Amino acid sequence: MKLFEKRYHPPGTGPGTLRVEEEISEDDFRIHLFDYTAESIVEHEDATAEQCKASLSLASRTWTHVQGSITPGTLARLGEMFTLHALALEDVLNVGQRPKVDVHEDHLFVVLALPSFSDTEIGISQVSLFLGKDYLITFCHGGYDPFEPLRSRLRKQPGKLRTLGIDYLMYAALDVVIDEAYPILELIGNQIESLEEAVLSQPDKTVLNQIHATKRDLLLLRRMLWPHREVINTLLRDGDIWIADETKIYLRDCYDHVMQIMDLVDNYREMASALLEIYLSSMSNRLNDVMRVLTIIATIFIPLSFLVGVYGMNFSNDVSPWAMPELRWYYGYPLLWLLMLGVVATMLFLFKRKNWL
Amino acid sequence: MKLFEKRYHPPGTGPGTLRVEEEISEDDFRIHLFDYTAESIVEHEDATAEQCKASLSLASRTWTHVQGSITPGTLARLGEMFTLHALALEDVLNVGQRPKVDVHEDHLFVVLALPSFSDTEIGISQVSLFLGKDYLITFCHGGYDPFEPLRSRLRKQPGKLRTLGIDYLMYAALDVVIDEAYPILELIGNQIESLEEAVLSQPDKTVLNQIHATKRDLLLLRRMLWPHREVINTLLRDGDIWIADETKIYLRDCYDHVMQIMDLVDNYREMASALLEIYLSSMSNRLNDVMRVLTIIATIFIPLSFLVGVYGMNFSNDVSPWAMPELRWYYGYPLLWLLMLGVVATMLFLFKRKNWL
Amino acid sequence: MKLFEKRYHPPGTGPGTLRVEEEISEDDFRIHLFDYTAESIVEHEDATAEQCKASLSLASRTWTHVQGSITPGTLARLGEMFTLHALALEDVLNVGQRPKVDVHEDHLFVVLALPSFSDTEIGISQVSLFLGKDYLITFCHGGYDPFEPLRSRLRKQPGKLRTLGIDYLMYAALDVVIDEAYPILELIGNQIESLEEAVLSQPDKTVLNQIHATKRDLLLLRRMLWPHREVINTLLRDGDIWIADETKIYLRDCYDHVMQIMDLVDNYREMASALLEIYLSSMSNRLNDVMRVLTIIATIFIPLSFLVGVYGMNFSNDVSPWAMPELRWYYGYPLLWLLMLGVVATMLFLFKRKNWL
Amino acid sequence: MKLFEKRYHPPGTGPGTLRVEEEISEDDFRIHLFDYTAESIVEHEDATAEQCKASLSLASRTWTHVQGSITPGTLARLGEMFTLHALALEDVLNVGQRPKVDVHEDHLFVVLALPSFSDTEIGISQVSLFLGKDYLITFCHGGYDPFEPLRSRLRKQPGKLRTLGIDYLMYAALDVVIDEAYPILELIGNQIESLEEAVLSQPDKTVLNQIHATKRDLLLLRRMLWPHREVINTLLRDGDIWIADETKIYLRDCYDHVMQIMDLVDNYREMASALLEIYLSSMSNRLNDVMRVLTIIATIFIPLSFLVGVYGMNFSNDVSPWAMPELRWYYGYPLLWLLMLGVVATMLFLFKRKNWL
Amino acid sequence: MKLFEKRYHPPGTGPGTLRVEEEISEDDFRIHLFDYTAESIVEHEDATAEQCKASLSLASRTWTHVQGSITPGTLARLGEMFTLHALALEDVLNVGQRPKVDVHEDHLFVVLALPSFSDTEIGISQVSLFLGKDYLITFCHGGYDPFEPLRSRLRKQPGKLRTLGIDYLMYAALDVVIDEAYPILELIGNQIESLEEAVLSQPDKTVLNQIHATKRDLLLLRRMLWPHREVINTLLRDGDIWIADETKIYLRDCYDHVMQIMDLVDNYREMASALLEIYLSSMSNRLNDVMRVLTIIATIFIPLSFLVGVYGMNFSNDVSPWAMPELRWYYGYPLLWLLMLGVVATMLFLFKRKNWL
Repeated sequence: MKLFEKRYHPPGTGPGTLRVEEEISEDDFRIHLFDYTAESIVEHEDATAEQCKASLSLASRTWTHVQGSITPGTLARLGEMFTLHALALEDVLNVGQRPKVDVHEDHLFVVLALPSFSDTEIGISQVSLFLGKDYLITFCHGGYDPFEPLRSRLRKQPGKLRTLGIDYLMYAALDVVIDEAYPILELIGNQIESLEEAVLSQPDKTVLNQIHATKRDLLLLRRMLWPHREVINTLLRDGDIWIADETKIYLRDCYDHVMQIMDLVDNYREMASALLEIYLSSMSNRLNDVMRVLTIIATIFIPLSFLVGVYGMNFSNDVSPWAMPELRWYYGYPLLWLLMLGVVATMLFLFKRKNWL
Repeated sequence: MKLFEKRYHPPGTGPGTLRVEEEISEDDFRIHLFDYTAESIVEHEDATAEQCKASLSLASRTWTHVQGSITPGTLARLGEMFTLHALALEDVLNVGQRPKVDVHEDHLFVVLALPSFSDTEIGISQVSLFLGKDYLITFCHGGYDPFEPLRSRLRKQPGKLRTLGIDYLMYAALDVVIDEAYPILELIGNQIESLEEAVLSQPDKTVLNQIHATKRDLLLLRRMLWPHREVINTLLRDGDIWIADETKIYLRDCYDHVMQIMDLVDNYREMASALLEIYLSSMSNRLNDVMRVLTIIATIFIPLSFLVGVYGMNFSNDVSPWAMPELRWYYGYPLLWLLMLGVVATMLFLFKRKNWL
Repeated sequence: MKLFEKRYHPPGTGPGTLRVEEEISEDDFRIHLFDYTAESIVEHEDATAEQCKASLSLASRTWTHVQGSITPGTLARLGEMFTLHALALEDVLNVGQRPKVDVHEDHLFVVLALPSFSDTEIGISQVSLFLGKDYLITFCHGGYDPFEPLRSRLRKQPGKLRTLGIDYLMYAALDVVIDEAYPILELIGNQIESLEEAVLSQPDKTVLNQIHATKRDLLLLRRMLWPHREVINTLLRDGDIWIADETKIYLRDCYDHVMQIMDLVDNYREMASALLEIYLSSMSNRLNDVMRVLTIIATIFIPLSFLVGVYGMNFSNDVSPWAMPELRWYYGYPLLWLLMLGVVATMLFLFKRKNWL
Repeated sequence: MKLFEKRYHPPGTGPGTLRVEEEISEDDFRIHLFDYTAESIVEHEDATAEQCKASLSLASRTWTHVQGSITPGTLARLGEMFTLHALALEDVLNVGQRPKVDVHEDHLFVVLALPSFSDTEIGISQVSLFLGKDYLITFCHGGYDPFEPLRSRLRKQPGKLRTLGIDYLMYAALDVVIDEAYPILELIGNQIESLEEAVLSQPDKTVLNQIHATKRDLLLLRRMLWPHREVINTLLRDGDIWIADETKIYLRDCYDHVMQIMDLVDNYREMASALLEIYLSSMSNRLNDVMRVLTIIATIFIPLSFLVGVYGMNFSNDVSPWAMPELRWYYGYPLLWLLMLGVVATMLFLFKRKNWL
Repeated sequence: MKLFEKRYHPPGTGPGTLRVEEEISEDDFRIHLFDYTAESIVEHEDATAEQCKASLSLASRTWTHVQGSITPGTLARLGEMFTLHALALEDVLNVGQRPKVDVHEDHLFVVLALPSFSDTEIGISQVSLFLGKDYLITFCHGGYDPFEPLRSRLRKQPGKLRTLGIDYLMYAALDVVIDEAYPILELIGNQIESLEEAVLSQPDKTVLNQIHATKRDLLLLRRMLWPHREVINTLLRDGDIWIADETKIYLRDCYDHVMQIMDLVDNYREMASALLEIYLSSMSNRLNDVMRVLTIIATIFIPLSFLVGVYGMNFSNDVSPWAMPELRWYYGYPLLWLLMLGVVATMLFLFKRKNWL
């Protein structure tokens, strides 16, 4: 995940300007249209802005979902048809917004952050929602569409999702986006637990990199998920016109999830910081071990070497047969080499076992 | 304790779904039923959902306690009989919830976290309570049943527990769950105190691991116990229909306990952090000691060795009888070996005493 | 000071139970009874619960002070006579409570923490106060009685203490307990200042232990003293029935003291943390010094030793009189020993001066 | 950026004094005058205070922009003409103010902080705004004029900027100043990301300096940008007389930007702190590597050297042809030198590869 | 600055007691009396308490300034004349109070902290103000009188200071005391900037001491200056009887200054903490450098020394003229010494350049 991931216009650009730097073609997004009442469902897999407009005039409830990067042109057309506020449209396009709720006259505008895990990286995609009279428009930037389970529930069961108002559908969408954090947090939890073991058994550079990467992910997750709390609070407090009392009970459940997710993220961050401290302590442990071995060896042999230096080992074998008889052995010299090779081999073996090589 | 211990449904699952991943049989839980008035008590050790229903219709107050992992089926049946809210039932099943209070129309729903200590590990079990008109239902996940002392008080003495309303029973249950933290905190307090001594006298890897484990336990304890404060506050503020004023005085006492427990947890966490700092400082101390010894030995002997190197100890004994007479002693060579062995032995003895070996 | 110092009942014990683990005899406490009006004073040094009861019925104001560990029996008797709340009595007995105010119908109940310094340790004793109509009951656990100056003021001067109501006496008692922190903080301040010097001049293990002990004391002090702020706030806000407006001005003064004490404690804690950082920095400094010396010595002598090794110093004195004439001096060998002993002595002297030995 | 960058008068100077230490000439600033209605525009590139006064009396809306360091004299004149409050004028002159809003009787006074990036340094310039009836006066200290895009929008399009009131122009100016933080934060984000790589691959002094510089920049940015939040809040809350409801919707959008900028700054600061921790860990890693190599080499060779020292290699070749035949090779000595040079070259090559040289 | 600098009475002393430990004579303070109306001024350089009393009865506004340590006697006399509250008088005497406002019936009592810089130390003096009907009494403990510029403004210009009420004079006094922090913060800012350079170029013990001293100063400054915020807030909120609306605009300006000062202090503290981190990092850098040099030298020479040890350099020059011809040069031995001296000199020169000696 990049540290700075917001699209923004150069300072001084007028508010509500719809423009993007990158090239976006009509193939980069798909509009999924759902028209439903308690009794019937009409679904358009690859709808156009005009079909959406047509659906709006029907008595049924309309859910328009846009997956991927919408072009400024199509967005502007959609905005015109549903009379969406220009500032809100700008926020749909300039992804990387902070989650928030804007209460406009004709509609609610909600921005959410969808955490996702692809390959080896944690990412955040922006999800934008417009809730109006009998319509819900959702935009999900990026490739992963979190609403598939919602659609299948909508198709199958003639339950609350179909009988209750469009605000309950919005709650369901919001719930999906927020709950997507659970599998990711479970994953990070496992990661931290395996790092915990690694940092105590064999702390090395890879472990350090992984700890850092985990801390970074958590920092970015926290930044994007924390405002969800405020989002749901605002919906509960100021969304009276748009959200029925019965739906609010469910939103409160959603709020509990957000709180628990934040608790987990905060805990993980503290665990990750603790890991770094332990890493440092372990390194310090290791250094102590290394130094102790060096000191012991040096402290034992240095005085000995001094002693043999003093006497230069020139013991006169004229005087005594005890004076270095080894020097006069037939295989004395090769034996010494064998002895030395043995010492080296033993050392290398010991170092290997201590993981020093 | 695992970092991530919440059961959750895949994102997109409908709210109020009762399903669990694991296999749960009817043997994994027991329902304990208590029917009491100020005068009489009826107790069923291994009741069925239907018996609970029957009790409910009596004039007496009913306490249903479910110990262990309830099956989704039985839970759904219980829920139907007592008309419990679907979201609340889901929270009973998806253990690992954050402690909270939900005020529903027909009943209060309270989630608590019960800290327990089994074997060598600190764990958290979820306790869920439903308080309705003349009934209390408690669920305690896990093996340990904290309510035994409550039951024996209920059986014995015809005191407040029997004469006051069902809300006082709920208070008593809540009080038990919260007070279970005291023995565990006493234990952790003793642990920290013994770690304090260890870290100053002989800091090693085991100590480091223990400090880390303690920090982790405290972090998780804090996460689960902190919301209790809000729970009791909500009960005092919003529980007016369910909780009598006299019971509130006792709840306030409970609140004091929560605050004191949080104070202790926070203090312990700061102590544990301090221990890590001291560990690092002690390691640094040790490294200094080791390096000083190495430096002293090396600094003394290196110049000496240089000197004996310079003269190669080829003092000509032709010129002077003072020139290395030792070399011409009869036992000179073996004596030198003895001297060197003595040096080695002394060193090893000293290192042993310094705990370096 | 122990980390966990609260007496508590096993979870599940009924509220208001008066029981203690330790053996407490009638000799472990003394009741001091004071009956006073603006004009007269009657004092009982070693009163019984019954005398207190008798005093209560007089028109005068009654101050009952219990010093030491009261037995559950006597406490229950006192409680019955003054109709004190059972929960409050339990808190008097289960010392180690968090400071707090409970407003009961018949009386105010206040718990305070009295810091004291005995021998070498800082301790906290619980002080409990009951303020009722014309009576004040104070309990001070532990050996040190802080109220002696108050008693002598009461005896001597016919000032405000005698003329104003019993609430002013309570303020005076509260003021004494809170102000007891000043001498202790002055002491800790001096301690920190002497540690500051020590940590910069000669950081060693003792200093580390002392810093840690100071941090610990401050942590525990903070935990116990911080709630005083809330205590006085509650008295000012909710104590209207019990506390006259004139006394409130004095309580506000008390509040200022609490704030200043907390400021000091927080400052000291930051200072103590800074000391630990400096300790580590100083250790790091020292290690650098040691390593530099080692490196300089080794770096200078290792190449020299190599050079003398290369030539084996077998300069042929057949060829030149310049070739190692020292070897043929009469006292060459003993002179070399003298030189080496001189080197060793110089080294040891230098190390001594650097505090390395 | 300097740590202390506020101009201030010596303590005791009367409030509202207009005086500066530095010499400021009439060339150090330029007044840019804009007179506009929905239909027409009149622009003066290098206006005088008197022209501003003349514009004020016209029916059109007047925007006076002063770029650079205004002289106290001209400022006083402007203040007199527009009846600006003396304290506000002082704040215009004493740049380095904290962003704030002052609601005066005749006008709003707003201070903002404009972050800018010149060359290699991040700087903050003060922007001051007066919003009165049909006039806006802006002062921008420093060389960079952020309002050029605003002017060109004003000239080109007959949009909201021209049709809505002067308060919308103020919003637009405010928006520009706040959005100037985005490019700078993008830059710092990239910087941190490149530091992240550097700190893990090759931590050295340059990296340390850069991390520190980044932390410092972020600290100062935060100090100056944080109060913007309060500024917009105050405008939304207390600016009713001056700011139309329609403009407030746009101001709320501005508020979102401020929040997001603060989120980013806070994240960056945590990242920068994490970098320092990783730097230390990497250094510790390196030290361990270095020490391990040293220890391995020393531990292997020290006993070997001892052994060759013991035997002095005086193997008697009288006794055995195996006794050091190399010593009698014709090119023995030069070959040894070759061998040793080979060892040195290998070592240097290895150290080079490990980046130790 | 001492950590604990408050004068306090032994716990149990009655409130309002005027007593000090130190000997204070009448020469330790001076009373400066100012009687002024918009038209005239009367000034007494060395007034007595009685003169102050006399002034009070005049129609003019009276400013009594007491510089230095007032004696309890004189203070009591002043208190009696102006009917000042006993608790306030005690606070004037027991300097080291936390800044605060007390609203008494007859007067406002304000305590401020005046930071000052004398010689090499930053100190805090207590300034106490009584604001009554038409009189202001100020006490400034310590030697430095901050009000001289105020007096000269009062003498010179017949401006607001003379025409507005006594509350404006109090504002002016307050403003002076608060603004005295600017020059001190500028100084500390410069200090930190020079420490920044030092810590990166040559971190040593002096730098460590200076960083610590700066942190300490900032900690104490913060403790004393932070409550100023509350002081001005209280004055704005509760001072309605004493402070005119026009003066409040100026007080709000003062509030901005306090906020900016706190911002600066907090920033400086973070900078100082960063410096300590960098210090540690730099030390770690240095240690790495030292160890690397040691390791390189040792790693190169140890195997070489082993090799020359093996051959004992007893190359037989009987066999080959290539065998160590140097040993037979006429000046071989002295030349070797020259070579070795050269090596030592080079080393010392290099170490000198690396700042290791």
